Amino acid sequence: MQAGDDLAALIAPQVRAGDIVVIAQKVVSKAEGRIRPLAEVEPSAKAQRLADEFGKDARLVQVVLDESTEVMRASHGVLICETRHGYVCANAGVDLSNAADDDVAILLPEDPDASARRIRGAIGPRIGVVISDSFGRAWRIGVADVAIGAAGVQVLDDWRGRLDARGRELRATEIAIADQLASAADLARSKDSQEPVVVIRGAERYITDGDGPGAAAIRRPREIDLFR
Amino acid sequence: MQAGDDLAALIAPQVRAGDIVVIAQKVVSKAEGRIRPLAEVEPSAKAQRLADEFGKDARLVQVVLDESTEVMRASHGVLICETRHGYVCANAGVDLSNAADDDVAILLPEDPDASARRIRGAIGPRIGVVISDSFGRAWRIGVADVAIGAAGVQVLDDWRGRLDARGRELRATEIAIADQLASAADLARSKDSQEPVVVIRGAERYITDGDGPGAAAIRRPREIDLFR
Repeated sequence: MQAGDDLAALIAPQVRAGDIVVIAQKVVSKAEGRIRPLAEVEPSAKAQRLADEFGKDARLVQVVLDESTEVMRASHGVLICETRHGYVCANAGVDLSNAADDDVAILLPEDPDASARRIRGAIGPRIGVVISDSFGRAWRIGVADVAIGAAGVQVLDDWRGRLDARGRELRATEIAIADQLASAADLARSKDSQEPVVVIRGAERYITDGDGPGAAAIRRPREIDLFR
Repeated sequence: MQAGDDLAALIAPQVRAGDIVVIAQKVVSKAEGRIRPLAEVEPSAKAQRLADEFGKDARLVQVVLDESTEVMRASHGVLICETRHGYVCANAGVDLSNAADDDVAILLPEDPDASARRIRGAIGPRIGVVISDSFGRAWRIGVADVAIGAAGVQVLDDWRGRLDARGRELRATEIAIADQLASAADLARSKDSQEPVVVIRGAERYITDGDGPGAAAIRRPREIDLFR
């Protein structure tokens, strides 16, 4: 995958109406040219200090800082950042592994929901698109795939206020459908092969008529976030 | 489902070798009699104070406190607790909805990994068992299903140190397979119907020969947890 490659055109022949396509963020970023050669990065004093502390490349740390609005934690060799999109993840989603060149940082898409909408628009209306990335979690070991972009799929299933047959509230919550779709897709992928796209068939009930609010709707607003 | 019901005997006819059975925590708890009638609960002053603050039933708050080793946050009407198992979730996993009686609290299983091992032992060796619950997440809206118990399935896929064809580390992390299995299963379930058991077919590569470490392996130890 290279900048300018037409991802939708590559995916379209593999999908049919009713499918949900889950695309790994990295391939979307590459197609969109969201890369920064580290040779062109001039680390600031702050980046140099964090890099020295963590044994990292100061240029890479600078890229992470550039992609972040806030470094929430810097510990255990990890920078937990809020990205410019409002997602909270390690290293602001900036990645080096599997890049064509060790000296290139791969950034998250500029606007992953817009990326999802573009791909859906090019493939067809009865297709759902999720752009996924692997995020670590507070309190739990390991990463799970979540949605950072979405179009044409139900992102949250809101059960608040819905009552059961006995008139009691069923679940006082929303269900993170798009994140669960991303996680389900990851199970079908082998990480050491080049499988950036997974097609989920049989989940038509989560496909929506319009693009919908996108994965942006999953971001927990700062004022109702207990873990900043 | 009632205390003493043989859950494994009910599930066994529906599964075959190679299947992974994902069972909602609530039905396991009911079969194990993990319920507390609120009429028998005497709230402490602390429970009464929290209940007054949040507009909740003080007896229910007392049950939540009894199931917790620590209340990490008490805000926005929610108690984020560390359970006696070491899981971090809202209300220590204590639930009232969908109970046979509004005045009964349903607790998490005493030892969900042991529950999973018992069910796997009764059904057969080439079966994976995941006991799932819906947990909220820091920084993200909505709940996603995770594994709180597991037997016979790979819980974490450890990629640390594995190299790609070019000799670079593929992913400096572990993948939360059991949590993703729980999330995938939830997509197949309709919350307003009584579907506590989902069978995942075609994921045999995640089945292990032995019971394995269980979902306990997913608990992030306090000393490497940045978000306490």
